[in-house]
Amino acid sequence: MALLVEKTTSGREYKVKDMSQADFGRLEIELAEVEMPGLMSCRTEFGPSQPFKGAKITGSLHMTIQTAVLIETLTALGAEVRWCSCNIFSTQDHAASAIARDSAAVFAWKGETLQEYWWCTERALDWGPDGGPDLIVDDGGDATLLIHEGVKAEEIYEKNGTLPDPSSTDNAEFQIVLTIIRDGLKTDPKRYHKMKQRLIGVSEETTTGVKRLYQMQANGTLLFPAINVNDSVTKSKFDNLYGCRHSLPDGLMRATDVMIAGKVAVVAGYGDVGKGCAAAMKQAGARVIVTEIDPICALQALMEGLQVLPLEDVVSEADIFVTTTGNKDIIMVDHMRKMKNNAIVCNIGHFDNEIDMLGLESFPGVKRITIKPQTDRWVFPDTNSGIIVLAEGRLMNLGCATGHPSFVMSCSFTNQVIAQLELWNERKSGKYEKKVYVLPKHLDEKVAALHLAKLGAKLTKLSKDQADYISVPIEGPYKPAHYRY
Amino acid sequence: MALLVEKTTSGREYKVKDMSQADFGRLEIELAEVEMPGLMSCRTEFGPSQPFKGAKITGSLHMTIQTAVLIETLTALGAEVRWCSCNIFSTQDHAASAIARDSAAVFAWKGETLQEYWWCTERALDWGPDGGPDLIVDDGGDATLLIHEGVKAEEIYEKNGTLPDPSSTDNAEFQIVLTIIRDGLKTDPKRYHKMKQRLIGVSEETTTGVKRLYQMQANGTLLFPAINVNDSVTKSKFDNLYGCRHSLPDGLMRATDVMIAGKVAVVAGYGDVGKGCAAAMKQAGARVIVTEIDPICALQALMEGLQVLPLEDVVSEADIFVTTTGNKDIIMVDHMRKMKNNAIVCNIGHFDNEIDMLGLESFPGVKRITIKPQTDRWVFPDTNSGIIVLAEGRLMNLGCATGHPSFVMSCSFTNQVIAQLELWNERKSGKYEKKVYVLPKHLDEKVAALHLAKLGAKLTKLSKDQADYISVPIEGPYKPAHYRY
Amino acid sequence: MALLVEKTTSGREYKVKDMSQADFGRLEIELAEVEMPGLMSCRTEFGPSQPFKGAKITGSLHMTIQTAVLIETLTALGAEVRWCSCNIFSTQDHAASAIARDSAAVFAWKGETLQEYWWCTERALDWGPDGGPDLIVDDGGDATLLIHEGVKAEEIYEKNGTLPDPSSTDNAEFQIVLTIIRDGLKTDPKRYHKMKQRLIGVSEETTTGVKRLYQMQANGTLLFPAINVNDSVTKSKFDNLYGCRHSLPDGLMRATDVMIAGKVAVVAGYGDVGKGCAAAMKQAGARVIVTEIDPICALQALMEGLQVLPLEDVVSEADIFVTTTGNKDIIMVDHMRKMKNNAIVCNIGHFDNEIDMLGLESFPGVKRITIKPQTDRWVFPDTNSGIIVLAEGRLMNLGCATGHPSFVMSCSFTNQVIAQLELWNERKSGKYEKKVYVLPKHLDEKVAALHLAKLGAKLTKLSKDQADYISVPIEGPYKPAHYRY
Amino acid sequence: MALLVEKTTSGREYKVKDMSQADFGRLEIELAEVEMPGLMSCRTEFGPSQPFKGAKITGSLHMTIQTAVLIETLTALGAEVRWCSCNIFSTQDHAASAIARDSAAVFAWKGETLQEYWWCTERALDWGPDGGPDLIVDDGGDATLLIHEGVKAEEIYEKNGTLPDPSSTDNAEFQIVLTIIRDGLKTDPKRYHKMKQRLIGVSEETTTGVKRLYQMQANGTLLFPAINVNDSVTKSKFDNLYGCRHSLPDGLMRATDVMIAGKVAVVAGYGDVGKGCAAAMKQAGARVIVTEIDPICALQALMEGLQVLPLEDVVSEADIFVTTTGNKDIIMVDHMRKMKNNAIVCNIGHFDNEIDMLGLESFPGVKRITIKPQTDRWVFPDTNSGIIVLAEGRLMNLGCATGHPSFVMSCSFTNQVIAQLELWNERKSGKYEKKVYVLPKHLDEKVAALHLAKLGAKLTKLSKDQADYISVPIEGPYKPAHYRY
Repeated sequence: MALLVEKTTSGREYKVKDMSQADFGRLEIELAEVEMPGLMSCRTEFGPSQPFKGAKITGSLHMTIQTAVLIETLTALGAEVRWCSCNIFSTQDHAASAIARDSAAVFAWKGETLQEYWWCTERALDWGPDGGPDLIVDDGGDATLLIHEGVKAEEIYEKNGTLPDPSSTDNAEFQIVLTIIRDGLKTDPKRYHKMKQRLIGVSEETTTGVKRLYQMQANGTLLFPAINVNDSVTKSKFDNLYGCRHSLPDGLMRATDVMIAGKVAVVAGYGDVGKGCAAAMKQAGARVIVTEIDPICALQALMEGLQVLPLEDVVSEADIFVTTTGNKDIIMVDHMRKMKNNAIVCNIGHFDNEIDMLGLESFPGVKRITIKPQTDRWVFPDTNSGIIVLAEGRLMNLGCATGHPSFVMSCSFTNQVIAQLELWNERKSGKYEKKVYVLPKHLDEKVAALHLAKLGAKLTKLSKDQADYISVPIEGPYKPAHYRY
Repeated sequence: MALLVEKTTSGREYKVKDMSQADFGRLEIELAEVEMPGLMSCRTEFGPSQPFKGAKITGSLHMTIQTAVLIETLTALGAEVRWCSCNIFSTQDHAASAIARDSAAVFAWKGETLQEYWWCTERALDWGPDGGPDLIVDDGGDATLLIHEGVKAEEIYEKNGTLPDPSSTDNAEFQIVLTIIRDGLKTDPKRYHKMKQRLIGVSEETTTGVKRLYQMQANGTLLFPAINVNDSVTKSKFDNLYGCRHSLPDGLMRATDVMIAGKVAVVAGYGDVGKGCAAAMKQAGARVIVTEIDPICALQALMEGLQVLPLEDVVSEADIFVTTTGNKDIIMVDHMRKMKNNAIVCNIGHFDNEIDMLGLESFPGVKRITIKPQTDRWVFPDTNSGIIVLAEGRLMNLGCATGHPSFVMSCSFTNQVIAQLELWNERKSGKYEKKVYVLPKHLDEKVAALHLAKLGAKLTKLSKDQADYISVPIEGPYKPAHYRY
Repeated sequence: MALLVEKTTSGREYKVKDMSQADFGRLEIELAEVEMPGLMSCRTEFGPSQPFKGAKITGSLHMTIQTAVLIETLTALGAEVRWCSCNIFSTQDHAASAIARDSAAVFAWKGETLQEYWWCTERALDWGPDGGPDLIVDDGGDATLLIHEGVKAEEIYEKNGTLPDPSSTDNAEFQIVLTIIRDGLKTDPKRYHKMKQRLIGVSEETTTGVKRLYQMQANGTLLFPAINVNDSVTKSKFDNLYGCRHSLPDGLMRATDVMIAGKVAVVAGYGDVGKGCAAAMKQAGARVIVTEIDPICALQALMEGLQVLPLEDVVSEADIFVTTTGNKDIIMVDHMRKMKNNAIVCNIGHFDNEIDMLGLESFPGVKRITIKPQTDRWVFPDTNSGIIVLAEGRLMNLGCATGHPSFVMSCSFTNQVIAQLELWNERKSGKYEKKVYVLPKHLDEKVAALHLAKLGAKLTKLSKDQADYISVPIEGPYKPAHYRY
Repeated sequence: MALLVEKTTSGREYKVKDMSQADFGRLEIELAEVEMPGLMSCRTEFGPSQPFKGAKITGSLHMTIQTAVLIETLTALGAEVRWCSCNIFSTQDHAASAIARDSAAVFAWKGETLQEYWWCTERALDWGPDGGPDLIVDDGGDATLLIHEGVKAEEIYEKNGTLPDPSSTDNAEFQIVLTIIRDGLKTDPKRYHKMKQRLIGVSEETTTGVKRLYQMQANGTLLFPAINVNDSVTKSKFDNLYGCRHSLPDGLMRATDVMIAGKVAVVAGYGDVGKGCAAAMKQAGARVIVTEIDPICALQALMEGLQVLPLEDVVSEADIFVTTTGNKDIIMVDHMRKMKNNAIVCNIGHFDNEIDMLGLESFPGVKRITIKPQTDRWVFPDTNSGIIVLAEGRLMNLGCATGHPSFVMSCSFTNQVIAQLELWNERKSGKYEKKVYVLPKHLDEKVAALHLAKLGAKLTKLSKDQADYISVPIEGPYKPAHYRY
């Protein structure tokens, strides 16, 4: 794809796959709105007062139908928005084009190369010569990373004129990041500094991104305030758990049509994502084996009747392998060689190094047969036996299906909107330092409350007497901070 | 689509959507073969002796990837095959083209009109002037119906020269059947008699088709022997139950991406199909309400924690409606008008009269918005509220997804192969009269046995002493005929 | 216990453990009545016309609270009743005493010796010199067996004066049966012939008993008509399945307090009873392994995510073993020796030869430590490792808990009442020959219907049009005889 | 029961129901040991060094078989122990007598009056004139409460000679507490001060007790350090959740034998305990309705397919009611009057004010019929309809069954042992102030790890590279403090 920015008739920039899918995208956005009561409530509650008036927001987050509803909630509250996806396979092209046509500057398509991916990220951050966005909505932390790396490089460059050297790293993706920064330095050696200057803060969506933020906080290198949306209960315990419970089987079925019942499924990791995946596989009739490093999570798996064993012990008897760890080097090419013919290997975690794709691709004599996009059969030369890898080892639920369903994303994204509002509203108060924050519990509870009526639920109300007895306010919050749900 | 028969370079007839999808179809067929151990075992066991040498088989059964493996099992055993689909939406075009190119005469594409559908059926039965096929593989009984109606019309025509009158029926589809027969009568007034003459028998796949056969048997109008494959345990308790458990959520997710968890799902009917559907919805986190006429099935639903209520009582509170009854007039347009906005309405049963599509289409002022193929939003004029109807009220799992997965279809289709073999082998013995038969239990058990190793299962063996104690042969069959599993 | 018949003030015979428990029994009977809507409906519907006026009914069926409600339904309909239990551990003493005091002649207590057991059976059949009962309610077939063996012995004795020789068999229990018959022959050589003469028929409750009846039918030795109540859908698919799903964990918990979650449970057999047991263990958080001889049942287990392996492969890794086969020699002493320390071994099937109790008891040096009644730890001398055997290898749910709950027994027992009524009403019509019959489907459906309102369910009614479309009467029966549910 | 302390031959004090049950208790203790790998590992690891040498420990915690294994772990590590139960119905008399005979001073029996209960608590704290215990193991906080109230009263008395006035409160139980303190003041006005002086700290087991401690900490009235064991993951997410999932159905079945399948169960509260209860009811085949005040927990319930409604909306349609809130006034007598006949009402929470027992007992004309101990039918005069109340509205799982099973209690109690060790080892270091602490995560993980082998689980080991990548030590702890599991 030629990397040229296009413009709508109104002059808004974009780069998407196929603008003719905008109508289809719009129809699905309208369906999704009905399933996203939290976001729609935000529009009703905050829309009239236009709280984001003047705010420039950059988003780096899977450009899906659900994200479209998020973006249009931000714009309905007054914001100007630029957007890219945070994964090369996760864009839904009809969503991207509907938003590009109607609401915001979008740079995203399904099946970007890594080169294209970072070009899109750069575009989403590019608000012109006055610096970048006021706020970032991040997922995985790539937008945040780019700014941090940019600032670091500019400092070194300022100090001694040294440019970043892409060949200094083995990591193919990081080479691209360094190249982009290097090339940018030549045209504007203060670009990322100006961004840093302007930036009020970031709200981060996912475990992986949050981990990076806490590391930067610990190292003292965090450049702006961050709200950890991932650890809102209504995010981590909903999107991660119930979202994956829905989208793992969805991805498996769309990619392979395989019958899950009767199969042996190995789920690597039993955190929230792993719990959702294991539940989905068990409910679909598979026998589930969990791999874990953490004895507490392992004991939880056992209490649900799941077996807990190391991958080595089960690699040759399982039919489906899903990684959910957020770690790297979970399924190596040596594991894959021992698997049954047509064993399915996929990763529902954020990055593509949970599965040793590099080892697989470079295995001597290995043959890749693409069944359909995101579904490849890799055949080993010696055994003539193959395995099926989904979405090239990346987020399989977004690569092979449509990701998490609207309702659960409404929880996550309502947290995002509330976090963005909080950062924006407090931009001058000094309330937020260069640290990582979580949303206060009453906002977390509010997000949940906004989603109950849609499901026909009615809460019980505390009496004054009861509230006093358990020492909570009648209107909440109802639980101490450490409560685990 | 212009209704012209095409020919392969080898001269075999076909009519499919797009021959260029044949390679993709072949890849998926190869994947499916690994998941269909029963069929592959038949090839190994029977292939060398070519038992179907000389047999002409017509199939009227969803032209999917799984069916492709069935067809190529029949041809691997020596048969010559012509095929059509038994539902206008159920063909997988890549499967059809792979088979058309490589193995058999196929007349099928996804999204046929009713007119096209019956044209295809006619083609599949058309083996030239010497009469029709030796054997029929039927699903829903349309091929069987056409022959019976044809013979009936020819008899009347012979008696008094009266031609069938399409305007004599309100049923749009039956008008087409009568038209076809009428037109055929003009060119060959003995066509269906010749088919009847040649035909050794039919093996029928589904509840609906079997019901028709038993009615014909009861009325004394059945023209040839029939094997009821549907009531093999390894069919009705597997394909119907586990197949739908898999494919209902698959269809819902592909069509609407809706989150099932938290929703209220109404499943109309709690037979094997309904049991599978209800289980799937419950496992996905929905609250399930069952409607039933049969107190025994109702009590079974209750024992699983499901609510049993008439549709009227719950029509305005549910989010998802699935019909599984095999009956008609289950969800009427008056029900639909009372539903929540964007309630999803679908039918996983065979025919499209479970949902009152006619009433919906003809409702004054109703607006149909096609989100994507097989997913329509119908908006009522007064309320401006809409419902979402899948696959135009027909088989939603085949219309919106890919139907049942290979493994469970392997059970069903292995029954078909065995039934066809039985009919063919006994074609001269007089063993089968013009009646409906079920396969003997030891063959049913054999079908199951062929599928165990793939799932890593090992059976226990009876000792002689134990077998005597419970009065069964060591090698089975292990259960009396009335055993319910 | 001294085997002397006692009498109530009204002169009715009985032999129970402790008459002072009658009040407690009465309270629990009253609770159970609320849970047994089928039986209570029978009282309402048939009570006024006293259809059993003049009928003498003998029951050999676990003398529990639920059976008490059955007995008092029979007496409410006019019958005179004598009762014994059909298992040495299954009597609930408070139930026995309440019935003995208030309603019928009862000979039963928890913990009978085999000697006592058969004495009780004899008493229940002993209606004085005019022969035995008019009708038998049987469970497991012991009352039926005694009459058949008695008649056989009397014939031989009449022919050549030979008395039965208890030493002719190794089976300890059968020795007792022969002894009883031998001793009876001396006092009345026509006793069992008179019984046979009078007897109108038997209704049999359980798989095991039914199997015996079909064998006798096949051999031509069945002496009177029998109704197979076990194969009513509302019996076999309810009591066996849902009853055991309830009572297996109940028995395990009362006997051992062991945590089921996290454990490995082996369920031998995956028929209706096995399905209930496996479901219960899975739901409680165990990992379940099934052993099966029948490939169809094995495949069903696999579809539910259960592993299917022979006992040998898993004997040393499992924590809980349950036999449900109805066969013998399932868990042998050699298996037990390989089990983990404190593995729990139990049988929920009817007879005590599924588990090799004889082999265990006679194992050299084995030590039995009774934790509490029905819970024994058996320690092997060499390993000093022990296993825990429940209810001495007999029906653990009745031995260690209270058996199936009232609601499901109401289904089974309403079938019994209806079967008894049928036999009695047709006693002169010749409708029933010396064969085994099942109840017609409309009665089966009626039993289910009587249990719906209690659970708040409402059925859907067929329209005339719909009923015609699927060719069933509006009021049912709704399914063909071969339907499997 | 005459409240006289008895003595063993060795001179140790005790007061239990029936010393002859000690052998039975010992057998069950030995069984439990096999199920409590965490505690047994503590004995192996710490026993030889006798770390508790010289420590006097008072426990106020349900005197069950599992607690017996805890007590004997404390004594195996060198402690001297005195014990009472923390609930009037929760003692298992055979466990109490085995411990009294063999290991520690026990004052507890099943069915204490409130008077007796507090006498026992006083005895357990009574280590003679030198003050009380060094350490307290508390559950619900009654031992802690007594000391705090005692100290408060002594201060007032010292100041102005005022004695506590029992009539100053309406709460019947608190009247008894004040009476005890008042009477004690007369004999030793420094008794509780001396206890406070000596006391190193308390480890508290349950949500309710912990809440009290945090309130005292907030008020600045906490007299000694406290370790909150309840909020160890291996406690709150195991004992509360999996323990109740096991013991709720156990209690229901032992008390009422009612069939759970098909019933409607209302679970008040969806915290960890409520989650366990709801899961148990759902798995047993009930339809579950949850009542909640907290929108987050409500949304979790919905995601599992449960209905969320206020009690008022469902009170007349449900069959089983369970309170799990830790709040008061959940089910009032006015609710009970609207319930179905024989609806079951029970509380699995700690205190008996969740259910309005006072309102029920004092309802004019209400009749109480005791079916058996802990199972009462209460009949309202107007309707003649009754409800069944378990364990007099107190902890039904301990009152009607045997509480949580050994394995899960091993997790909880291993936390207790580790907490007690920590307090004792740091008694001179000043590490712990008069505050509430939780155990560090690595100890929490250790508790879990000790329980894996028993269930056949094997953990995966991190490589150095992987550990660095996710920034955790190879040996753990693996999660941040706020992680929710």
